[in-house]
Amino acid sequence: MSDLPLAIGIDFGGTSVKTGVLYRGNLIEEAPRIDTQKFETAAPLIQEINELIHDLREKHPGIKAIGVGMPGFVDFPTGLVHNLTNVKGWQKIPLKKELSDLTQLPVTVENDANCMTYAEWKRGAGRGLKHLVAITLGTGVGGGLVIDGRMVRGANFVAGELGQSSIDYKGSEGEYGNRGSLEDYVGNQQITDLAHSAYTNDGQAKKRHECEPAQLATLALQGDPIALSIWDQVAQMLSTALMNCCWLLNPEAIVIGGGVANAGPTLFTPLEKHLRAQLSPAFKENLRILPARFSNEAGIVGAATLALEEAGFNVDD
Amino acid sequence: MSDLPLAIGIDFGGTSVKTGVLYRGNLIEEAPRIDTQKFETAAPLIQEINELIHDLREKHPGIKAIGVGMPGFVDFPTGLVHNLTNVKGWQKIPLKKELSDLTQLPVTVENDANCMTYAEWKRGAGRGLKHLVAITLGTGVGGGLVIDGRMVRGANFVAGELGQSSIDYKGSEGEYGNRGSLEDYVGNQQITDLAHSAYTNDGQAKKRHECEPAQLATLALQGDPIALSIWDQVAQMLSTALMNCCWLLNPEAIVIGGGVANAGPTLFTPLEKHLRAQLSPAFKENLRILPARFSNEAGIVGAATLALEEAGFNVDD
Repeated sequence: MSDLPLAIGIDFGGTSVKTGVLYRGNLIEEAPRIDTQKFETAAPLIQEINELIHDLREKHPGIKAIGVGMPGFVDFPTGLVHNLTNVKGWQKIPLKKELSDLTQLPVTVENDANCMTYAEWKRGAGRGLKHLVAITLGTGVGGGLVIDGRMVRGANFVAGELGQSSIDYKGSEGEYGNRGSLEDYVGNQQITDLAHSAYTNDGQAKKRHECEPAQLATLALQGDPIALSIWDQVAQMLSTALMNCCWLLNPEAIVIGGGVANAGPTLFTPLEKHLRAQLSPAFKENLRILPARFSNEAGIVGAATLALEEAGFNVDD
Repeated sequence: MSDLPLAIGIDFGGTSVKTGVLYRGNLIEEAPRIDTQKFETAAPLIQEINELIHDLREKHPGIKAIGVGMPGFVDFPTGLVHNLTNVKGWQKIPLKKELSDLTQLPVTVENDANCMTYAEWKRGAGRGLKHLVAITLGTGVGGGLVIDGRMVRGANFVAGELGQSSIDYKGSEGEYGNRGSLEDYVGNQQITDLAHSAYTNDGQAKKRHECEPAQLATLALQGDPIALSIWDQVAQMLSTALMNCCWLLNPEAIVIGGGVANAGPTLFTPLEKHLRAQLSPAFKENLRILPARFSNEAGIVGAATLALEEAGFNVDD
């Protein structure tokens, strides 16, 4: 890795674009964020990203590749972004082509959950593993899969959508008509709703924001029985989707990140219990359930690392 | 494929061992079945299989490899059979080593559902595909996965257990403590139970055997509303597990085999409806749901084909 060059990672979110420079897996500089909501179309936003890249390259001449993580479906080989639901004007944008024309550098464009998975696999909790499931728990639930040492992208490069998988065939219809999708049970809002209802039913008047996952984790640590019971429910629901991944893919590890995972043992302890109770020995003997190493920087780290690998550099040593 | 040699495929079932000779994907001879229940230990059964192999090789000197499909977990590289629940004396049996010592031929031992998947992938409905999910519906529910042109075996070679994946996180506990496992909803017995209850509740006195999947398919074809409604329920439950595979793996095709799949359009039409209603465009545009090509011979064909490939022959052309 001695000659591993610098790379730019771009984490394109629904509200802002975060950009950073990566050296040997470390974020050595982060650029000012770009607010996506002030743009009506894709072109001026791409132009602003390009200017930012230009500035970073002036400071760091050793940058050899650019990786972008997008909050939506991407055609991986061509880097065409199909559609962003939360950012105006992003339909069928050939981002890889446009950015590489502008920068004359190799550009890789990938789904953001796959970038997070890539960060954990190459630089984080899942380093060196061949069979890995990654899940990120926040407002939404995203995921990524590594099988036999390769990222699973599927026939149309949209694989890994753990948040859309169902845990209840009779559940109500989700965003895509899918019944009982995991995201509709263990997303931030859903956990908050569950806790708020439980406290209300118990006659405890709590404000909604007091029932958010971070506050709920603190309450659980203090031994609050309702908070403990909500985390047990969340763990049970989450364990169902993860158990399905185990029965299907027999991974070595499941890496869990995102804001909700900050609950730590409050979530991980009941999750381990429910997951292991539902697997036969060959599936759980060597299974590890690991907290993600990266938090907010996962997208930048993953996108930049992936870009380097796609550009032909060995990022594994 | 002009010089593709003969291979023996062995389909080791809970009640009998079926053996056949494969030439270019065709079963050219089937040997007498061996009744597994008359053996108390593994050794004499392996000896009887060996004698049968010997007889087949006398008739077909061109046999170059032997493949065995087992109804249980197998350590694929070593061919160690961990445990068979329905056959006495099969714990930690090094079947690959024993059969290759006896026959001096290359032997491959694999899980039976993976053999079925292999048959459909290399010789059947999923031929030439790179991303494939296979499922077999019978007394139990088995499955196999092909991703990026490779069979998914996982960290301990036990991947692909679609029948154990959950469709209801609140369901009752299955064989391995797993709640709501697909097998407990769409297995032969469960479909029969569902139909029998529905007819009974409707005041129609039907015997249980009249409610089995084959009879229920005939009733549905005749327009019987209860039969149609049961098949719709089965399709909905099945679609949940298959939709999860789609969101996770984004396959090109799902191949469905086993006795229950003989219902044909009675099952496939509502299944297509439920599955497509729960997927976003990128996941369903090119997705095909295909009936399996092979039925009872799938295990023999898959095991023999896999054995040839493992022995270094190209079975793809």
